[in-house]
Amino acid sequence: MTTVANGVNVQALLDAREVLKTAPEAAQFVWRASSKWQNGVHSTTTVKEFFGLGQEQTHKNEAVFDADHPDVFAAEDNGITPIEYLLVGLASCLTAGVASVAQNRGIQLRSVEATLEGKHDIRGILGADADVRNGFTDIKVTFNIDADASKQDIEALVAQSQKRSAVFDAITNPTDVTVEVA
Amino acid sequence: MTTVANGVNVQALLDAREVLKTAPEAAQFVWRASSKWQNGVHSTTTVKEFFGLGQEQTHKNEAVFDADHPDVFAAEDNGITPIEYLLVGLASCLTAGVASVAQNRGIQLRSVEATLEGKHDIRGILGADADVRNGFTDIKVTFNIDADASKQDIEALVAQSQKRSAVFDAITNPTDVTVEVA
Repeated sequence: MTTVANGVNVQALLDAREVLKTAPEAAQFVWRASSKWQNGVHSTTTVKEFFGLGQEQTHKNEAVFDADHPDVFAAEDNGITPIEYLLVGLASCLTAGVASVAQNRGIQLRSVEATLEGKHDIRGILGADADVRNGFTDIKVTFNIDADASKQDIEALVAQSQKRSAVFDAITNPTDVTVEVA
Repeated sequence: MTTVANGVNVQALLDAREVLKTAPEAAQFVWRASSKWQNGVHSTTTVKEFFGLGQEQTHKNEAVFDADHPDVFAAEDNGITPIEYLLVGLASCLTAGVASVAQNRGIQLRSVEATLEGKHDIRGILGADADVRNGFTDIKVTFNIDADASKQDIEALVAQSQKRSAVFDAITNPTDVTVEVA
């Protein structure tokens, strides 16, 4: 039997699955972010702490992200736009899924690249047409994968990644968001 | 009349709204991202170019984002998780909206901070319970805003920001995502 080395500790994840089947409270995570307005439409958002496995957790490092709008929106372009962050999340979630599923199926990956295109009619956010939605019209993801597997097996990897992707679900299905002023 | 200085060029946005009402093709944007798998569930995603106003556009700077999973997922924590990027997008979109609406309404902002919590039952992504969704259970956003305005006016700012937010729409409503293997 060949051992593949995609760097995913699949056994730990399979063990966690078994443990969480009988300990659902440990599976309740809370991801957090805090943002500060800088100026104009520029803000910085910090991510460090989260809750999971029944206790407070922390990332190794605090991460800070600038978001702004480019000069075609009469802004200073100090960072990518908020909606582009959704593409970052989608790309990385599907890619992590491909690596995990490949590891589980004994498929050695050599390279995984994805390109994403999110169509967006900005008449919505500008209030130019009430019939145009604010968010993406649609998103297309194209994977280029070099792996020790047939095209069919690679397509099955990608399909399984979608099926278990947190971000794919969050974008393709609705989520309740409550917004309050303290 | 007092002029407020939130740093948003509202006049340019109002002008764009008028122009795009009669030139809908210029309002068709395409946001792009490209990702590369590194190892395990670690990937890097690059954002630089986009399409809008009828032509190719580019951000001033290329931005590269690491995504990974923390050690409680048996991973190396080389970056925040993919799903946390959705909170970054949501925080920054609503904040940009608050600044823009405040500028339009003549309200001087002094500080805008938001904290976000996204609940997530990870039994979904681990395949421990087929009835648990993969994405967030729900998201709560809490704004702390110091501005030259009443609590009621501040709440109205936040409500209007939600109403025009690209990311709020993308998370609360479904979007079609097509995933292909090249």
